[in-house]
Amino acid sequence: MRAGDMLYEGKAKQLFLTEDPGVVRVKYKDTATAFNGEKRAVLEGKGEMNNRISTFFFRYLNEHGIPNHFIDAISPLEQLVRKVDIIPLEVVVRNIAAGTLSKRTGLPEGTELRHPVVELYYKDDALGDPLINEDHVSVLQLATEEQLKEMREMALKVNDLLKQLMEQEKILLVDFKLEFGVDAEGKLLLADEISPDTCRFWDAKTGEKLDKDRFRRDLGQVVEAYREIWTRLGGKKDV
Amino acid sequence: MRAGDMLYEGKAKQLFLTEDPGVVRVKYKDTATAFNGEKRAVLEGKGEMNNRISTFFFRYLNEHGIPNHFIDAISPLEQLVRKVDIIPLEVVVRNIAAGTLSKRTGLPEGTELRHPVVELYYKDDALGDPLINEDHVSVLQLATEEQLKEMREMALKVNDLLKQLMEQEKILLVDFKLEFGVDAEGKLLLADEISPDTCRFWDAKTGEKLDKDRFRRDLGQVVEAYREIWTRLGGKKDV
Ligand SMILES: Nc1ncnc2c1ncn2[C@@H]1O[C@H](COP(=O)(O)OP(=O)(O)OP(=O)(O)O)[C@@H](O)[C@H]1O
Ligand SMILES: Nc1ncnc2c1ncn2[C@@H]1O[C@H](COP(=O)(O)OP(=O)(O)OP(=O)(O)O)[C@@H](O)[C@H]1O
Ligand SMILES: [Mg+2]
Ligand SMILES: [Mg+2]
Repeated sequence: MRAGDMLYEGKAKQLFLTEDPGVVRVKYKDTATAFNGEKRAVLEGKGEMNNRISTFFFRYLNEHGIPNHFIDAISPLEQLVRKVDIIPLEVVVRNIAAGTLSKRTGLPEGTELRHPVVELYYKDDALGDPLINEDHVSVLQLATEEQLKEMREMALKVNDLLKQLMEQEKILLVDFKLEFGVDAEGKLLLADEISPDTCRFWDAKTGEKLDKDRFRRDLGQVVEAYREIWTRLGGKKDV
Repeated sequence: MRAGDMLYEGKAKQLFLTEDPGVVRVKYKDTATAFNGEKRAVLEGKGEMNNRISTFFFRYLNEHGIPNHFIDAISPLEQLVRKVDIIPLEVVVRNIAAGTLSKRTGLPEGTELRHPVVELYYKDDALGDPLINEDHVSVLQLATEEQLKEMREMALKVNDLLKQLMEQEKILLVDFKLEFGVDAEGKLLLADEISPDTCRFWDAKTGEKLDKDRFRRDLGQVVEAYREIWTRLGGKKDV
């Protein structure tokens, strides 16, 4: 394989090789999927919004001491990022009950949690990305104990930082999903994306959903909601 | 309510009040259920086997420093136990992949785990007894951090003790489920039952299942298998 070749095509992004073996180009797609790929649609403008929002968050986190894969945004749809070996875990942090947490625990959607809840999901489409615990991680050798500890700490720090940032824009950070990876030097980096595809955002006043739940639950105005997030973060209304 | 009144009727046991408010009488039933109660049958003799086997295990664990609710066996179907407030968690310990662990992780049934895996399930029939993690336990206030730690330690100690005991009888302890409760003095006690209904036992030579999976998977000879466990533990063949 050589520079320009597609390394991987996922449901939301494509990864391309660059001249530098330590760097990949990520291209955000307009495809939306939910329920492990069962529901699909093309939402024009989503890719651009996610690229812009994710870029904003990664820069902000970088400035606040969270080591992450982001290098630069190079076009409305594209970023350069450090190539990592993704740890096959989805690390979810929750502040308010919603979605599968409500289903699992019976806590009604909207219940404020006494403290943030961290969940680990095994990134495995065939198994349906099941919830697992730290003993499973260890037995499956998905991450070391040290990496688990570091990911948990980083995830909670990201939560504090993003919650604070969004509160200023009158948005509640309900929950979000992170992925981590290890670079060529063995350093743990926050990777993948942080966007309305991977977070739940609720308008603090109206409770209106400003995230992928608009797509999952057929609420309409999906890209408009993503654009609203981008606008509140300081992006131009008519990018 | 007064002595003799039934306090609770579960799927496998009945609980009765006694003259002593700190003591309940447990009566083992012949009913077998699986898949959250969807599959049912009456298996004559199962109650007696479970009472005898559970009695044996609780005595053995007591002698080896595991504080538990067992007081005495008073009839072929009945025990006296200390009354506790059950912590609504099923604490599962696994040595070999089977059942839902195989489904969840993709590890083929029979895979030896690198180390024991402890899992917590939320005892809630309406929610289907879902797997949860320690953050969920804390947010739902099901147990304190201290209790969680103690339960985990006790569960792993029970695992060591039972594994050793069963190995002598040429039986593999694949996995088992424990319940814990808190007595009137606030002391954490191992409670409920330990029997082929709540453990997976495989014959070490033939791999033959000697537990409730015979019922779940329609393998037949269910009570005969329970009796085999009882016999190997030193019980009389013709009790
Ligand atoms: N810095 C990085 N280096 C290498 N791979 C990355 C990096 N950041 C993210 N990835 C991976 O690139 C892929 C991004 O594609 P996308 O998000 O579309 O995948 P997906 O459809 O969610 O599927 P899955 O995440 O299950 O593979 C993901 O597999 C993600 O884990
Ligand atoms: N020492 C004890 N004091 C009080 N309750 C106990 C004690 N030991 C066990 N129990 C409880 O008594 C019940 C035993 O009944 P059984 O095992 O038939 O219940 P079940 O059908 O499994 O239902 P569930 O456990 O979901 O209530 C269980 O609810 C168990 O938690
Ligand atoms: Mg993805
Ligand atoms: Mg029971």
